[in-house]
Amino acid sequence: MIITIKKDAPEIEVQRIIHSFEEKGFQVNNSQGSDYHILGLIGDTTSLDIKNIQANPYIAEVTRIAAPYKKANRMFHPQDTVVDVNGIKIGGQEKIVVIGGPCSVEGMDQICTLAKEVKDAGADMLRGGAYKPRTSPYAFQGLETEGILDMVEAKKQTGLPIVSELMDAEHIDEFIQYVDIIQIGARNMQNFSLLKAVGKTNKPVLLKRGLANTIEEWIMSAEYILAGGNPNVILCERGIRTFEKYTRNTLDLSVIPIIKERTHLPIIIDPSHATGNWKLVESMSLAAIAAGADGLIIEVHDNPECAWSDGAQSLKPEKFKTLIEKCRGIAHVIGREL
Amino acid sequence: MIITIKKDAPEIEVQRIIHSFEEKGFQVNNSQGSDYHILGLIGDTTSLDIKNIQANPYIAEVTRIAAPYKKANRMFHPQDTVVDVNGIKIGGQEKIVVIGGPCSVEGMDQICTLAKEVKDAGADMLRGGAYKPRTSPYAFQGLETEGILDMVEAKKQTGLPIVSELMDAEHIDEFIQYVDIIQIGARNMQNFSLLKAVGKTNKPVLLKRGLANTIEEWIMSAEYILAGGNPNVILCERGIRTFEKYTRNTLDLSVIPIIKERTHLPIIIDPSHATGNWKLVESMSLAAIAAGADGLIIEVHDNPECAWSDGAQSLKPEKFKTLIEKCRGIAHVIGREL
Amino acid sequence: MIITIKKDAPEIEVQRIIHSFEEKGFQVNNSQGSDYHILGLIGDTTSLDIKNIQANPYIAEVTRIAAPYKKANRMFHPQDTVVDVNGIKIGGQEKIVVIGGPCSVEGMDQICTLAKEVKDAGADMLRGGAYKPRTSPYAFQGLETEGILDMVEAKKQTGLPIVSELMDAEHIDEFIQYVDIIQIGARNMQNFSLLKAVGKTNKPVLLKRGLANTIEEWIMSAEYILAGGNPNVILCERGIRTFEKYTRNTLDLSVIPIIKERTHLPIIIDPSHATGNWKLVESMSLAAIAAGADGLIIEVHDNPECAWSDGAQSLKPEKFKTLIEKCRGIAHVIGREL
Amino acid sequence: MIITIKKDAPEIEVQRIIHSFEEKGFQVNNSQGSDYHILGLIGDTTSLDIKNIQANPYIAEVTRIAAPYKKANRMFHPQDTVVDVNGIKIGGQEKIVVIGGPCSVEGMDQICTLAKEVKDAGADMLRGGAYKPRTSPYAFQGLETEGILDMVEAKKQTGLPIVSELMDAEHIDEFIQYVDIIQIGARNMQNFSLLKAVGKTNKPVLLKRGLANTIEEWIMSAEYILAGGNPNVILCERGIRTFEKYTRNTLDLSVIPIIKERTHLPIIIDPSHATGNWKLVESMSLAAIAAGADGLIIEVHDNPECAWSDGAQSLKPEKFKTLIEKCRGIAHVIGREL
Repeated sequence: MIITIKKDAPEIEVQRIIHSFEEKGFQVNNSQGSDYHILGLIGDTTSLDIKNIQANPYIAEVTRIAAPYKKANRMFHPQDTVVDVNGIKIGGQEKIVVIGGPCSVEGMDQICTLAKEVKDAGADMLRGGAYKPRTSPYAFQGLETEGILDMVEAKKQTGLPIVSELMDAEHIDEFIQYVDIIQIGARNMQNFSLLKAVGKTNKPVLLKRGLANTIEEWIMSAEYILAGGNPNVILCERGIRTFEKYTRNTLDLSVIPIIKERTHLPIIIDPSHATGNWKLVESMSLAAIAAGADGLIIEVHDNPECAWSDGAQSLKPEKFKTLIEKCRGIAHVIGREL
Repeated sequence: MIITIKKDAPEIEVQRIIHSFEEKGFQVNNSQGSDYHILGLIGDTTSLDIKNIQANPYIAEVTRIAAPYKKANRMFHPQDTVVDVNGIKIGGQEKIVVIGGPCSVEGMDQICTLAKEVKDAGADMLRGGAYKPRTSPYAFQGLETEGILDMVEAKKQTGLPIVSELMDAEHIDEFIQYVDIIQIGARNMQNFSLLKAVGKTNKPVLLKRGLANTIEEWIMSAEYILAGGNPNVILCERGIRTFEKYTRNTLDLSVIPIIKERTHLPIIIDPSHATGNWKLVESMSLAAIAAGADGLIIEVHDNPECAWSDGAQSLKPEKFKTLIEKCRGIAHVIGREL
Repeated sequence: MIITIKKDAPEIEVQRIIHSFEEKGFQVNNSQGSDYHILGLIGDTTSLDIKNIQANPYIAEVTRIAAPYKKANRMFHPQDTVVDVNGIKIGGQEKIVVIGGPCSVEGMDQICTLAKEVKDAGADMLRGGAYKPRTSPYAFQGLETEGILDMVEAKKQTGLPIVSELMDAEHIDEFIQYVDIIQIGARNMQNFSLLKAVGKTNKPVLLKRGLANTIEEWIMSAEYILAGGNPNVILCERGIRTFEKYTRNTLDLSVIPIIKERTHLPIIIDPSHATGNWKLVESMSLAAIAAGADGLIIEVHDNPECAWSDGAQSLKPEKFKTLIEKCRGIAHVIGREL
Repeated sequence: MIITIKKDAPEIEVQRIIHSFEEKGFQVNNSQGSDYHILGLIGDTTSLDIKNIQANPYIAEVTRIAAPYKKANRMFHPQDTVVDVNGIKIGGQEKIVVIGGPCSVEGMDQICTLAKEVKDAGADMLRGGAYKPRTSPYAFQGLETEGILDMVEAKKQTGLPIVSELMDAEHIDEFIQYVDIIQIGARNMQNFSLLKAVGKTNKPVLLKRGLANTIEEWIMSAEYILAGGNPNVILCERGIRTFEKYTRNTLDLSVIPIIKERTHLPIIIDPSHATGNWKLVESMSLAAIAAGADGLIIEVHDNPECAWSDGAQSLKPEKFKTLIEKCRGIAHVIGREL
């Protein structure tokens, strides 16, 4: 960490600042520039709070050099994390996984039929929402426990592991019992109570990036889960909020090489929520695979116009099948299976 | 709601679309443009989901005309909501309230001393964090229940009502018992489980705007609380996330007249979190009062450099006192008390 | 265009508004909702200014249904535009083009050596900046005319057509004489005087998307050039400005299918400026080709550390060669040549 | 400037890097951390290009400590710049100036009538657009030279100095001859050719902040003008682009104290373009004055519904008069005249 002190700071203040860091166990290098004093702090700075240091009126700037995350950091854990979901492996050089299914579970028949269709299309897992984070209190809020049990039946019929979103710690036992991957949604990426709760389990967690969260904040949220003792974190990019109006969000595919350089965690892409438009899903899926994603999570619905939520971004099963076939071609070119 | 249908849609599809809305009880006006059919839906469209309607490939665009919120809507509730907090009234033409206190409660002595200082400076209420949403799992997470009880003592000594942030439904009973205003933080603005939980109480709720949430989404989160049965919602702007790097967030003061035009709810401003820099707090507070805010919530600390969190944005008590005096001058010019 | 009038507007005002549009030659459909009057305007609304219509205090909202662009609009020009650059064709189902070269021309030897290297690597054209838009007045501003003439020599030696950025109308004759594609940089995307100037020529124009411009604004800038009489417009995405700090900009690959659906113009991708980091360039190039881009423009430098500008995002020629080979593999999978 | 070198960099590479900076005349402090080498560069780093330094694969990060601007920097020029416009002074502790007028000049009668009305309302200067930057090529592009001459007549009749936007260097002589303040619009904030052109004159320049430009980039654009030899720069905030949809842009009032701390230049606010909505103009004007702005520039039109551009954000003269009176009250509270 680099601390820049204003030139006009009295020497006694500079010494006081240096001393305060030395007391905390840091080694401090002090160099004098033309317009500033510069202190270099040597030691583990992850627990230092930049905003507190900046409170000192003699300090001009504080710059973090080392990343603020440790357990997620590739530097300290060079080997890829591979998450095992009922025998299906995600990450590293494993086969790319495809997760398909409806935005919302709408009933047992719907989800069982769709489960078979996404399986036939080539999907590895089934997604479906039972607890739905909806902007409006008047919109459909999900079938809740009934929806989870409907997914369990779909899993029984198809063998596909199931992924569903957990919205609060209150329902965590239900998820531990029935669900194969617990999804933490974008709006809850910094719901730290929920992160701590899933950190105490051993379940694979699909951690979506928040709508307006930096990659560093996203990794820090993964760090919450890892620091809690759960190593099974899968990151999921689903678009960020920008000024653009032709798409619901802006899909940021540059996260794929960045996450792979800075962390050892698997990264999958959700082109459905990212674009909000089924017509853009195929090309963004191909792009994600070309860029090195470890998987895709895609909304599929038999009858998008009648979906209970997010119909605009859902693919019909036949389109989903074509998409998987095209993605397979791309995967082979870059030396991966799918 | 306006539904634009592509010109090349077969007549039978257009009729099918019209019929589907009529079945839901809407009156549908159909007009034929040169390049599009245009349907105007008449009726209560708040429960319609735009994204589902867009799933129909013949539909080019869907535009909501009426606001998606009802209970928060000034159109249906022209009178200002005034929230009563232990006799202190917020909103309407009531006296502007000032809430001061530290980012984190650090112990009973600290909070009691600060409570007296902010009261002497002219504050009406005391803020303090006991459960802290921190980006890093390694940062101080708050004194939790102990912190709440410390605030209760500070209230006993000064008479100031207390405001603190609730991070999960698990601790709601503690907040109902001890706290005067429950704060929902920016990162939880769309934690819908938490919104539903506070909607079932009768406690005043301070709902902060999310870092990247539109004003409409913010009002929709207020609608969750109102629809749950709790009319005591106070909105709080605390800056939004932009590309700018010289401030932590960008304070959006235009929300003040917008919230007052579109809703009947009180709106207060948090210049400390918005700017992240104590040197900007005074000028942004004056601006907020000039623009018509119903209150301010400001971080105050005796010794910002040693604060356990957010020192950079905390004012010392004497600066806070000067700020209140200057704000009082502005308030008088625009015909309000403070 | 849909005009929503407030319910409490006096009938005479509604009639006055309707009349004002009929006078301008529009057919007006009037339908009465529960909370609003809704007018549907039929006719060519491209010249109407939404902001003026909104000035009427009785008007609640104005929504444009038809796109505001005509000449760029796929609806009216279903066939792909293919731009011919000295016999090299860009767009449609033509071979994907790769443009390589340094950020800045640094001298005749440098550009001629690099031209041979990018040609050997498989590039179709040479890029190089002679007039440089630099944030700082103290940074290298380009070799100007000398740089252009150096590129002309490089073209003579290799046969590669040359692409360079024009910053003002003053130098347009030089560009018409010497350059094969005139680049309009991101910061000048809405320099309308410059757009009008290149619109009067017949030269191919590479129009970069502005850092914070919507896709619609970008198409409108293309429309300026097309409306001026120059049909040879190539769009180029180079990343947009967001809150993310790990990349210089956020590359928005969803523009590829969107531009191809809404317009008939070719679209190429600049992963170098988008990411600002050479380590991200290869994966983003592969993603761009997978998503259907018509070309790539990539910064290449022999010795990036000594580049006079933008070294951090430049690839060495051998890495550029590998990139082209990998892109070729992706191109074949999606049925394109490269 | 701080250069962070990766720990695994060979010693010879570290020495090579140090040597390269010493050769350029910098003094280099080298300190060895646990995970990084840290170099502190001492000397004038304004001409160093961070992106080039980052090209070295052994370098992890480059952090600028000193601001990249010199002539605009308060540190080196502690005294406020006061710009003199025909005897009206802007900046420092001078009287706050109010500039009013239409978005577009629509004819001599219109501008002369409006000039009298804004003068009667209390304005100090007249604004009016003769060359208009319009998103659409089909929208009204301004009366050009005729519009400028109409403004000259309005000035003759009222004595108000005139402000108008220059879009290209081609018309600069006309502006030098006729206009009192040359406005550089938001879309041209980084049109460096234009900045250099006005930097060679001695005319006061009103430099608007770009829609998506950081404060630092904005100051760097001012630096272009100052470095060219023209000290008469006035900065103007007019809102930045965010995700928010209820306003056209988000007005960033925190720039006022920031600009005053970091630079010595006057800063004025344009609430009309910032909000795009006349109903928000008054409260944002009051807020701007309370925050310490040196002036306001506001759109005024006799008949906003019939304005040729931007009617939605224009105030009628009587509302403008009330606004000025209210602002005067705020100004007195903070110790300024208006």
